[in-house]
Amino acid sequence: MPPSRPVGNAAARAPDDGAQEPQAAGVRGQRTRDALLAAARAAAAEEGWHAVTVRRVAERAGCSPALVYEYFAGKDALLLELVRDGFRLLSARVEAARAGARQDDPLATAAAAFAAMARAYWAFARDHTDLYQVMYGLGGTRFPATATWTEGAAVGEAFVPVVAALSGADATRPDVARRVYTLWATVHGLVALVLAGRMDGGWPSGESLLAATVDDALAAWSAAVPALPVPLGSATP
Amino acid sequence: MPPSRPVGNAAARAPDDGAQEPQAAGVRGQRTRDALLAAARAAAAEEGWHAVTVRRVAERAGCSPALVYEYFAGKDALLLELVRDGFRLLSARVEAARAGARQDDPLATAAAAFAAMARAYWAFARDHTDLYQVMYGLGGTRFPATATWTEGAAVGEAFVPVVAALSGADATRPDVARRVYTLWATVHGLVALVLAGRMDGGWPSGESLLAATVDDALAAWSAAVPALPVPLGSATP
Repeated sequence: MPPSRPVGNAAARAPDDGAQEPQAAGVRGQRTRDALLAAARAAAAEEGWHAVTVRRVAERAGCSPALVYEYFAGKDALLLELVRDGFRLLSARVEAARAGARQDDPLATAAAAFAAMARAYWAFARDHTDLYQVMYGLGGTRFPATATWTEGAAVGEAFVPVVAALSGADATRPDVARRVYTLWATVHGLVALVLAGRMDGGWPSGESLLAATVDDALAAWSAAVPALPVPLGSATP
Repeated sequence: MPPSRPVGNAAARAPDDGAQEPQAAGVRGQRTRDALLAAARAAAAEEGWHAVTVRRVAERAGCSPALVYEYFAGKDALLLELVRDGFRLLSARVEAARAGARQDDPLATAAAAFAAMARAYWAFARDHTDLYQVMYGLGGTRFPATATWTEGAAVGEAFVPVVAALSGADATRPDVARRVYTLWATVHGLVALVLAGRMDGGWPSGESLLAATVDDALAAWSAAVPALPVPLGSATP
């Protein structure tokens, strides 16, 4: 979705404050930044990330390359911002799914939360493929993850208390971390196989495999739970 | 590993037979083709796939771009050959791991084969990262999988009889296919997270998660096996 009108008119420009780092200031600066990021995503959706350059972003946004450089040091810096925005959005979706799960008892609530969070992750990848690609180095992009480690880890951390509750184990147990990581790998693997064109049946096939994975995990974990699990903070008695 | 001497000297050239499609003939032609593919991999290992062009391959191989075009219609055709070679090599490694597993009884043999095949897949991805990237659209590449569907599917098909034996179910059961696909997604997801820099601890962490995944799968499947499974063709009584 390209911006409805060109960005980078005089009013939208950030003041030239002589700072060394490219930066934007104030609400108008934020709007311009967002419009440039949207222009990059629109270009990627049409032509793929490999075709996205500062020049293409500027053309798409109806501004000069120089304006793009006022906001981002270059293409890599722009992509880094998209990675950060993407992980923040994914975290918010997963957290909302967790908070929205309400059942009669804590264990059922945790199970519902886990399933809803997995579906939210999947829906994000399917509905925001261009963002997901740049977040994980797919679709012609490649990006060092180190600078966005915190944002990326937040997604996994949201799963930890839920999986701990379902496992009847303390959230610090290595087994819980292992289960979260392995689940993450499975879901990411399903998404990556779909995006690489290697999943027979595409997104719907991947989604049914995800549902089966969630069911299998819940069954396997519950088999090891002797009694009521650790209550979830979000569960109402 | 660049070729030890330049390719494309007169003796190595394929005869100009006037065919419309770029092609190579005979043993020398095959050698030149392999040297060009090796040059592409060497360039990718150093600079990443995004930097690989016909010109770079030619420079690396010590020949003219025109010679590269005698063998490949362009960069995409060259990558497609690498994808095919990669899946053939991966299939061979996985099959060798399966054939090499020998235990006292068919079930133990199947379990050993499954673990060895998973380890062989992992070792291939770790030791041939550049090939794995181009096979799955990682690391700055992106490639339609449709043209190499057969080669890719062969890897999964090698797992089917083994998983069927371990599941005590007929190999045609949808559950077996689902288990193979889900396992593939998990292993691929672990590899992709390592390659994207999102796996805390890198390859060794991923490898221990893979080992735990294999153990968990074997435990979960064996719980549902009432008696001796379908004997594997490769098992000796």
